[in-house]
Amino acid sequence: MRRNTFIFNLLLCAFLCAVSTDAQTLRSPNGSLVMDFSLTRTGEPTYRLSFKGKPVIKESKLGLVLKDAPALRAGFTKVTEGRQSRDETWEPVWGEVRVIRDRHNEMSLVLRQASTARFMIVRFRLFDDGLAFRYELPDQPGLQSFVLDDELTEFNLTADHRAFWMPGDYDTNEYSYNTTRLSGVVVGKARNNGEINFSRQFYENAVQTPLALKTDDGLYISIHEAALKDYPAYYLVVNRVTFRLTSHLARNSQGSAAFLNTPAQTPWRTFIVSDKAVDLVASKTILNLNEPHSLTDTAWIRPRKFVGVWWEMHVGRSSWEYGATANVKLGETDWSSLRPTLTHGANTENVKRYIDFAAKHGIEGVLVEGWNVGWEDWYGKWKENVFDFVTPYPDFDLEELKRHAAASGVKLIMHHETSASATNYERRLGEAFAFMKKHGYDTVKTGYVGRIIPRGETHDGQWMVNHYNWVAERAAESRIMLNVHEAVRPTGLHRTYPNWLSSESARGNEFNAWSVGNLPEHETILPFTRLMGGPMDYTPGIFQLDLGVYREGKKERVRTTLAKQLALFVTIYSPMQMAADLPENYERSLDAFQFIKDVPVDWDDTVVVNAEPGDFVTVARRAKGRDEWYLGSITDENGRQWNIPLTFLTPGREYIATVYRDADDAHWEKNPAKYVIERLTVNSSMSLPLALAPGGGAAVSFKLR
Amino acid sequence: MRRNTFIFNLLLCAFLCAVSTDAQTLRSPNGSLVMDFSLTRTGEPTYRLSFKGKPVIKESKLGLVLKDAPALRAGFTKVTEGRQSRDETWEPVWGEVRVIRDRHNEMSLVLRQASTARFMIVRFRLFDDGLAFRYELPDQPGLQSFVLDDELTEFNLTADHRAFWMPGDYDTNEYSYNTTRLSGVVVGKARNNGEINFSRQFYENAVQTPLALKTDDGLYISIHEAALKDYPAYYLVVNRVTFRLTSHLARNSQGSAAFLNTPAQTPWRTFIVSDKAVDLVASKTILNLNEPHSLTDTAWIRPRKFVGVWWEMHVGRSSWEYGATANVKLGETDWSSLRPTLTHGANTENVKRYIDFAAKHGIEGVLVEGWNVGWEDWYGKWKENVFDFVTPYPDFDLEELKRHAAASGVKLIMHHETSASATNYERRLGEAFAFMKKHGYDTVKTGYVGRIIPRGETHDGQWMVNHYNWVAERAAESRIMLNVHEAVRPTGLHRTYPNWLSSESARGNEFNAWSVGNLPEHETILPFTRLMGGPMDYTPGIFQLDLGVYREGKKERVRTTLAKQLALFVTIYSPMQMAADLPENYERSLDAFQFIKDVPVDWDDTVVVNAEPGDFVTVARRAKGRDEWYLGSITDENGRQWNIPLTFLTPGREYIATVYRDADDAHWEKNPAKYVIERLTVNSSMSLPLALAPGGGAAVSFKLR
Repeated sequence: MRRNTFIFNLLLCAFLCAVSTDAQTLRSPNGSLVMDFSLTRTGEPTYRLSFKGKPVIKESKLGLVLKDAPALRAGFTKVTEGRQSRDETWEPVWGEVRVIRDRHNEMSLVLRQASTARFMIVRFRLFDDGLAFRYELPDQPGLQSFVLDDELTEFNLTADHRAFWMPGDYDTNEYSYNTTRLSGVVVGKARNNGEINFSRQFYENAVQTPLALKTDDGLYISIHEAALKDYPAYYLVVNRVTFRLTSHLARNSQGSAAFLNTPAQTPWRTFIVSDKAVDLVASKTILNLNEPHSLTDTAWIRPRKFVGVWWEMHVGRSSWEYGATANVKLGETDWSSLRPTLTHGANTENVKRYIDFAAKHGIEGVLVEGWNVGWEDWYGKWKENVFDFVTPYPDFDLEELKRHAAASGVKLIMHHETSASATNYERRLGEAFAFMKKHGYDTVKTGYVGRIIPRGETHDGQWMVNHYNWVAERAAESRIMLNVHEAVRPTGLHRTYPNWLSSESARGNEFNAWSVGNLPEHETILPFTRLMGGPMDYTPGIFQLDLGVYREGKKERVRTTLAKQLALFVTIYSPMQMAADLPENYERSLDAFQFIKDVPVDWDDTVVVNAEPGDFVTVARRAKGRDEWYLGSITDENGRQWNIPLTFLTPGREYIATVYRDADDAHWEKNPAKYVIERLTVNSSMSLPLALAPGGGAAVSFKLR
Repeated sequence: MRRNTFIFNLLLCAFLCAVSTDAQTLRSPNGSLVMDFSLTRTGEPTYRLSFKGKPVIKESKLGLVLKDAPALRAGFTKVTEGRQSRDETWEPVWGEVRVIRDRHNEMSLVLRQASTARFMIVRFRLFDDGLAFRYELPDQPGLQSFVLDDELTEFNLTADHRAFWMPGDYDTNEYSYNTTRLSGVVVGKARNNGEINFSRQFYENAVQTPLALKTDDGLYISIHEAALKDYPAYYLVVNRVTFRLTSHLARNSQGSAAFLNTPAQTPWRTFIVSDKAVDLVASKTILNLNEPHSLTDTAWIRPRKFVGVWWEMHVGRSSWEYGATANVKLGETDWSSLRPTLTHGANTENVKRYIDFAAKHGIEGVLVEGWNVGWEDWYGKWKENVFDFVTPYPDFDLEELKRHAAASGVKLIMHHETSASATNYERRLGEAFAFMKKHGYDTVKTGYVGRIIPRGETHDGQWMVNHYNWVAERAAESRIMLNVHEAVRPTGLHRTYPNWLSSESARGNEFNAWSVGNLPEHETILPFTRLMGGPMDYTPGIFQLDLGVYREGKKERVRTTLAKQLALFVTIYSPMQMAADLPENYERSLDAFQFIKDVPVDWDDTVVVNAEPGDFVTVARRAKGRDEWYLGSITDENGRQWNIPLTFLTPGREYIATVYRDADDAHWEKNPAKYVIERLTVNSSMSLPLALAPGGGAAVSFKLR
């Protein structure tokens, strides 16, 4: 289609269409949400939103600031408006449920700025659980290539809500969450500010999305975005007095936000709201706002669990690097003649141990980090050529391991740490993927630790957003699955790129290994925040919780009970789920490990049983393709007593419930490792009593009797 | 080898070696050049150079400035010194001569900075025609990864020499040359400052290298560099009072010069000097300073001539772009439905015309620019994704042209304009080269017009230097030959990358098509400047010199005679030489075109007969593998009379000399197209009289009788 026909049709419509100049109202399908759009007297686009008759967003402005051109913020008149409704279902390639319903009403407003003769479209979609909108800039003579300076989107909130937030940062999401009123958002007082490998905060009152809010009248809100493509991530700048949130876009190397070319559109800005916490956690609105994938075959995309040579490096038992030197150079260093550290984790024998363990217990994948040359000097130098992704260390016998893995029915999982040198990764990607295919790898964990190259770009900026998406597209062409660490936080793009199975982009279990750790509440906040955007590779399953066994004299520990580590396999959804601990630690507790062996990574249904951010969350899920349920329940530093109604089970059927729970005297700090396994016969009319220790949890499998 | 052994051996030597603290002297093999190195009382490394007993460089300092670390400029003591001599010959894959002699004496000084305990090596090589030196920073505990801020190399000249210079610029070399005393180097007064698509000057008194100088006592000097790898290009900052030149390095996006990692070394800084202009022009010192290539097979590297769909766009007869729109987007625009401009040059029929012409006249290559989608909106927007390098326009029938070219025995030459978006080119390079191989292309002309992406980097900076070299390496892996436009100026790397046949990196013939043009003296300066670094794709051979035939009412013209256009095929060496004019213009003067058909692009020998920068140059070359000579002679705006001794011919043999000369009344401005062709029988004991018109030239072929 010739794109300029847009303008022609528009101008035609401007003459022929009957256009109201009053406020436009859009109602959600069940009427619970009502959005009003209007132009102010000076032609500023604004909207407001109410939930069940009560305002949740007061009049809020919309607009875009261009560089070296008049802002698209005022002087608009409405040219025309379009409306449509959708109610359809679709099936994700993998996920928490088999079928997703996309039901919304849409209104698009074509606005014209008289002074510049420029057109801008604001498209709203109203679901029963939230509002989404985006800006669209059609191809037009007065706007083709341009530089975007910032975005003026506002969420003008109604009161000083409680917020679950982390500092706005161009380069990382690996913070703990802070729980304060909006008036208390002070980045300088945020938790764990100094622990992150590389961070770039910018405003004292800016926060990352997804931002979770709870109002005093019991509403749960999540503000985020959907379908982040060819655009920077956005942040929310909090007015601590008026509670107005204003968007800010990640900067590029030139100090602006984005280089764009019409037709252009922003990601969807999403405001999900519910009076039930469980509904917020279960929302599929962000996924619905993403485009369907265009793959003709998805059979090669296979969710899986994996173990790996990884946690042992985090706890200091082995090293990523092979050589005992601090200076190496790709293309010059003779790796075989380096003096070995003798602590290199990814050696053939050790990897075989993991393969054998995985094979024995039916775990499909084995991740190996530190297999490839370059780790001696990989971090903190802003070096461009750190890794080549194709050269194994001398003690990593790829042919032997490939043979051994194939004979054992286990898939090796590739690891590509980029050291944040995206240019180096891009220029080597073709060879790196070809190497993977040649050696039978179908999955890669990628990482972006450090300062981005191209120097001056950021993890969350447009350039890197395009990079992540480009890697996902190239990976799909090669039928490669991705698990991406240190990237921008997800925005539901796994619908468009179903081979992008998981991401980190938050504070994972690894922080327990070498920082002040994660507070017991941490994982109860994730479902309301980070997980709204997509699956997370949290790496649960640590059984050896006292890390002093590796580092004598140090009181370091994972800040959960063992049973909670099991429960995380259910409460944190990911189709690539790591059983992160060392084989020997699992071997010592094979009865508890049975839950990890059993728990699926792909589901036909999910029921969020209860949830409260910062306090607890309980989720039950039905295994893909079979009548088998798994439940995970976790709590913060407080113990809990539940009586879970088992109404999710198929009526009339009997199940054996195997309960993996905290021992009565368990406690995340004082007695974390003690658990009890109980078996009982249950059905859908019963309730299951569950006691969670402070910092504890429970995991339950329900198998047909 | 373990690199740290360097330090150990060094410290050992510091105890065992007898080390003088006096000045060190290095003599060139024939003794005409003498270099003295010494440390000042404050430990600053300095050197001086004399030629045949007269100083040519006064005491000049050496040093490096690091970012956030003490400078490597003073406080040095000498730890040890090494000396070696070389006298050997080697054969280039292609070139101006069959055998090159590398004869030099070398001295390396290991210096130690007491305050930092850092080591720096300065390595000098003294040839009979010049000095070269470089800095080497070995791997050492106190210096591993570091950021280089600038280089302090000085050339402290002896007087206010005449200089042939262009403004120092991070992004372009496409300036005219200015001829002034050193005291007159004022960038703001330079010629043609405003004509270049994108330029970035930085100092009012900085010039590009190669810089040509002529002293009042008749010495010719060229200052440049050799083997530019993993380092920015350098410029010379002219002290207009003391005539001291100080180096300055191209900046990166962070405002520094280079991110380096020991072992590191700078390119060679070269100072070539002679009392004979012809010897300077013939110098092979820069080639000798580059590393040999490491290709096992070079038979696929084939110098050639080509015609192409190119000049017709420059003179406005056709367009690169296919669509009549100013806004397109890779991946979205439907190219087949664009409204065509109807002037698109790279259409099937027109390309066939060039193929037929090439086949008829034995020209091996046909370049086609504008064959691929994206040209509607390719320039000036700093767009990253402009070209994909694999999608032909709808009117370019690749299959048909491929068939037709093969049937005609002609090779199509690929064109990859990157729009200076190097990141986009890098990520698409694998596919682009695979596309070439699939369709039988073995050569690509690349281009870098505009502002570099990664944004903030420059054409001459370290990042782009690495890019060009990386592309050359990848091209060699695919057996692809390169002709690179708008890149950093060459530094003899064609020895290391013999598939990198030619570069532009200067003001080519194209400027005659749409600017104030090139002055008649321009091509007489090139051999003393730009061509010192390597071959240039100047695109000579314009027969229709009056460009008003394309643009009525405009007095635009190529500022040479036709005979001079022929002579350029000899005076400007390139193994990829374009016959740039339109077939119909050649068809009208097939007798003159015969010289272009005859002239080779690869040579066994070269004799620079006479040369004076800004005035004239005459070069004779013997064809590769046969006793056949070609001579080109060009002049500036003044007519010349030569009597060329033919001593280069094989004694005792008779040759038919075919002389293509200016008609007696020819004149570059008033009567440029008039030429005379004469045939005579000659031998080596004869002299050939040649008359060159103002702005004219002569071309001669000598074939055995």
